[in-house]
Amino acid sequence: MKSKFKLVEGAIVAPKGFKAAGVFCDIKRLGTGKGSNKGDKRDLALIVSDAPATVAGMFTTNQVCAAPVKVCVERVKRGTAQAIVVNSGNANACTGKQGLADAREMAGFTERALILPKGSVLVGSTGRIGVSMPMDNVRAGIIEAAVDLGSTVEHAANAAEAIMTSDTRPKQIAVEFKLGGKTVRIGGMCKGAGMIQPGMSATGKRPAAFPAGLHATMLCFITTDAAVAAKSLQAALQEAVAHSFNRITVDGDMSTNDTVLVLANGMARNRNIERRTSNVERRTFQEALNHVCLELAKMIVRDGEGVHRVVTVRVNGAKSVADADAAARAVANSPLVKTSWHGGDPNWGRIIDAIGYSPATVVEEKIDIGYSASGGKKVLWSLKRGQPTQATFKELCAAVAPKEFDLHINLNLGKANAVMYAADLTEEYVDFNKGDVGDPSSLGG
Amino acid sequence: MKSKFKLVEGAIVAPKGFKAAGVFCDIKRLGTGKGSNKGDKRDLALIVSDAPATVAGMFTTNQVCAAPVKVCVERVKRGTAQAIVVNSGNANACTGKQGLADAREMAGFTERALILPKGSVLVGSTGRIGVSMPMDNVRAGIIEAAVDLGSTVEHAANAAEAIMTSDTRPKQIAVEFKLGGKTVRIGGMCKGAGMIQPGMSATGKRPAAFPAGLHATMLCFITTDAAVAAKSLQAALQEAVAHSFNRITVDGDMSTNDTVLVLANGMARNRNIERRTSNVERRTFQEALNHVCLELAKMIVRDGEGVHRVVTVRVNGAKSVADADAAARAVANSPLVKTSWHGGDPNWGRIIDAIGYSPATVVEEKIDIGYSASGGKKVLWSLKRGQPTQATFKELCAAVAPKEFDLHINLNLGKANAVMYAADLTEEYVDFNKGDVGDPSSLGG
Repeated sequence: MKSKFKLVEGAIVAPKGFKAAGVFCDIKRLGTGKGSNKGDKRDLALIVSDAPATVAGMFTTNQVCAAPVKVCVERVKRGTAQAIVVNSGNANACTGKQGLADAREMAGFTERALILPKGSVLVGSTGRIGVSMPMDNVRAGIIEAAVDLGSTVEHAANAAEAIMTSDTRPKQIAVEFKLGGKTVRIGGMCKGAGMIQPGMSATGKRPAAFPAGLHATMLCFITTDAAVAAKSLQAALQEAVAHSFNRITVDGDMSTNDTVLVLANGMARNRNIERRTSNVERRTFQEALNHVCLELAKMIVRDGEGVHRVVTVRVNGAKSVADADAAARAVANSPLVKTSWHGGDPNWGRIIDAIGYSPATVVEEKIDIGYSASGGKKVLWSLKRGQPTQATFKELCAAVAPKEFDLHINLNLGKANAVMYAADLTEEYVDFNKGDVGDPSSLGG
Repeated sequence: MKSKFKLVEGAIVAPKGFKAAGVFCDIKRLGTGKGSNKGDKRDLALIVSDAPATVAGMFTTNQVCAAPVKVCVERVKRGTAQAIVVNSGNANACTGKQGLADAREMAGFTERALILPKGSVLVGSTGRIGVSMPMDNVRAGIIEAAVDLGSTVEHAANAAEAIMTSDTRPKQIAVEFKLGGKTVRIGGMCKGAGMIQPGMSATGKRPAAFPAGLHATMLCFITTDAAVAAKSLQAALQEAVAHSFNRITVDGDMSTNDTVLVLANGMARNRNIERRTSNVERRTFQEALNHVCLELAKMIVRDGEGVHRVVTVRVNGAKSVADADAAARAVANSPLVKTSWHGGDPNWGRIIDAIGYSPATVVEEKIDIGYSASGGKKVLWSLKRGQPTQATFKELCAAVAPKEFDLHINLNLGKANAVMYAADLTEEYVDFNKGDVGDPSSLGG
């Protein structure tokens, strides 16, 4: 996809005034004291701004939510922060009061190590559920990371590696653009491969209008040297997440830990983006943030557990946005549709079946189903008004053969639309997730 | 499970006055005229009562619903019928006006072949979606079946085979019991292996209180020689289906064709069961019908596509039945939970994650999760009030090792409960459903 934003190197350290580190401190261990030590993969990341930053966050709406999420929800409300500490290998979820104390200690220990004000460090975790954090390892990791902090491409890459779990590759991006004459950058990194169908809100509570059954651990950390007021940053993040992370699904399971955080340190010295800022500047920043979030979100789907094909499900012509969303999610999460994608099978019967059982209001005789190249405008329709078209089986097979394609569904009942970025379901997904029962580390999430 | 109902042979022809047949007429073919002719598996079944019978039915609530479902919804309203004609290999779904005409012609042709009154034959179909019925084959099949009709165990077995699609074995049962001194029998057969999470209602419309996202083709045909008034029969079937077919899931996909039909011909000469019938007789009939439906429903899950393990998910202590149902369905349909069952992995982290993202109101610190033998009372708790118990990993692995076991979830918030009969998710399911793209017959459902 073409972008009006210039891609730059350095991801989270690309914006002015940010440092990062990623180290190994052997967190993926049980309470038994037996370390897993698998390949010494980095498992603790630190992101630090040279100056206090405004902050915004979006969090899982799962009612079972991890301790670090609870700590972040509280702290983001204050509107400012300066650093983020993140570990992989342990989700610190379902760990009770000790888990909450551990999450606070992760933040507090980082504050002391970096000589930062109390309450200025945010925390993220991903990994197994229900196992207490090995805090001695975490503290050792924080000290090592604090010593190692730097602004090179390698520093960012180490941090991006340190937050990976079942990810096969790090996920990073940075863009540069102009804001009122000043050069501004946004950088980001994320992780996530399984337990992926985020439904995040600013408070971790479900809004009344939230689609029922929204269902990764996905973590995303974004840095920018733009000057943005906290409220404007939160509003911008909500819009960006609504069109990116909240629109992806690998397996339809929403995690206990989903988190997106943004730090904006203002070191680009643009005119502070606030409500009264000219629409052009706010809009440009919004578009850049949307772009960064969407590119990172798509990286998660492409690297989803066992994923071979990525399908963008575009539902148009629904009576309401809730209907469009419900139809898109039903199709995107149907095991029968997902296995047919894996098989390269243009099976519209399964698609219309899923549309029909979705909570959306639909009329069989009005439904159109077709395919285009990824992001393409030319649609090959397989079904028009509920009836097969003249498209041949061979043509349809060719349309669903690429690694990525778009599925177009028109309900022809209204004007609302919704998009989901979805994955196929493969034998590898099952094989990976059935776990290794000999390994008690499989107890968690 | 122990039953107070005596098992007898003969399934749908066990009750007095019923005949059946199952024949091969090569329905699984495309409009191309190219027959598939795979092993000559029987594909058309006929069930006929010697006398007019009262009738009741339950139908898919999928908004995209097959022509035979539409025909049955109309005809069941009349309260009487005398025969059922069913085919496999073609669902007659998404086939437009021609499909509706074909479904009526299947019924009409059977009426003429058997010299039955107009409107007295019901029709069922299962198989590919979106392909017109090969009506010449269907008519030939109906004539052959009409000639072959009989009341032997083989006749019932042939009919049960003729309705199979991806089923690996026929599913049949018959029970005998006393009703006011008279010997009464109920027989049944069903099919279904994939696209299985029925949500059926009497009208095919969703009741207001229907759980959102209910999502097989499953077909079930029940015969009884009990005398039951049509309204009482419909009420009894609704209760039986609510506790059986509407409580199963293989893959969470609700079909366009799900149908349960009961014919009650009264030839046992018991006192007609009506509203004013003594509660004992009505209750006994209800229990027998419940038993037949539940046993048949469980056969579907056990024979589900690629299924290795069957798990009964029992949610207790919910604030409402809708909450209990929502939590049970979230767990029963979570790909991560289902793959862990396949792996024999007692992964409570994934279970509590699914409970947390379900629409049910839950409180992490109150949730209990445990296991028992299938139908057993002794529960091994892995989680109590949100925290791991002293149960060892070895003990928990042993609890989830059997081919069938019960998963107990107590939300500890209220008194409502719900049960789901669920299946694991295996590589075989994916392999089977990714289809054979070389075969255009995979175009359908």
